Amino acid sequence: MKINNREIQFPLNKIFPKRWSPRSFNGKKLTKTQIMTLFEAARWSPSAFNGQPWKFVYTERGDKNWKRLLNLLIPFNQMWVKNSSLLVFVISNKKFEYNGKSNKTHSFDVGAAWMSVALQASLMGLAAHGMSGINYKKATEVLKIPKNYKLEMAFAVGKKDLKSKLPADFQKMEVQSDRNKVNKFISKGTFVWK
Amino acid sequence: MKINNREIQFPLNKIFPKRWSPRSFNGKKLTKTQIMTLFEAARWSPSAFNGQPWKFVYTERGDKNWKRLLNLLIPFNQMWVKNSSLLVFVISNKKFEYNGKSNKTHSFDVGAAWMSVALQASLMGLAAHGMSGINYKKATEVLKIPKNYKLEMAFAVGKKDLKSKLPADFQKMEVQSDRNKVNKFISKGTFVWK
Repeated sequence: MKINNREIQFPLNKIFPKRWSPRSFNGKKLTKTQIMTLFEAARWSPSAFNGQPWKFVYTERGDKNWKRLLNLLIPFNQMWVKNSSLLVFVISNKKFEYNGKSNKTHSFDVGAAWMSVALQASLMGLAAHGMSGINYKKATEVLKIPKNYKLEMAFAVGKKDLKSKLPADFQKMEVQSDRNKVNKFISKGTFVWK
Repeated sequence: MKINNREIQFPLNKIFPKRWSPRSFNGKKLTKTQIMTLFEAARWSPSAFNGQPWKFVYTERGDKNWKRLLNLLIPFNQMWVKNSSLLVFVISNKKFEYNGKSNKTHSFDVGAAWMSVALQASLMGLAAHGMSGINYKKATEVLKIPKNYKLEMAFAVGKKDLKSKLPADFQKMEVQSDRNKVNKFISKGTFVWK
């Protein structure tokens, strides 16, 4: 079975293979409800002891923070994110809010919240594209992220535009990436990969 | 709007608030296709440089590995996971497979894959319940997880059973947990929480 040009091994819900990470965006303003609905999806993610360690710092294209935050990405990412509508920096709290003790799954749990956002974006006809291509040191300073928090990644959201509007180099990359087969990452009873 | 007894602030897709983490399971065997379809959902998750750092070690209730792996959970979790149908240990690769360099989003990216599994489980009428209540040291040894990999968490999957079949203490906990409001975890332009 093929979904979105991806060869599926087992009959999963289409929302997963339909989601992908384009770089062509039309730059149009999102509604406040669209933006808040993305965060609402993050909200219902599971986390250890329901600690909800996620924090999101965001800016909309053209608002007073846009250029300052866009500049925290590596130049390669700036080139395409500038045409997205929303740029979000994803931060985790290393400690539990309710008792101040260290939370060993803080990054993992915030990764789960990010997945919810990415799927909700896709379900709304938008696309979210994650990035670790950030100047982490500068971004931590500029965003004023305290010591007990960790900048995890950033993502851009927008409505996909025509591939042909991208620069030639980016056009080649505008494809739905493939994945390893399931048997490459599952194992019964014991870790058996090298 | 309420979905699954949860008060929704913004009109997200129902799959997110419908997913939750029960402890009552009927212990019935899952089909091979059900199990593989959970992993198929993980498969299509996004990850930095498409690194796909996730590995899953699993056991089915009653198979030869079941008791050995169940014993790696803290006693509290063993009490309810023993009635689930599938127990999965979630592991991340700290290095990129393609170049051996360290992957700074390995935990985060595997958290995204876990979220896909949890949603796919819910979409199939099953439930997945994540745990950090593991004896991490013992589990890393018993599962033979190499140094370059990290045990992130475990999760149990099964078909939900009647709450009344749970021990009294567990019945009180068998509720859909609430969440912080969206404005508690989003901020414009700069990190503004303490």
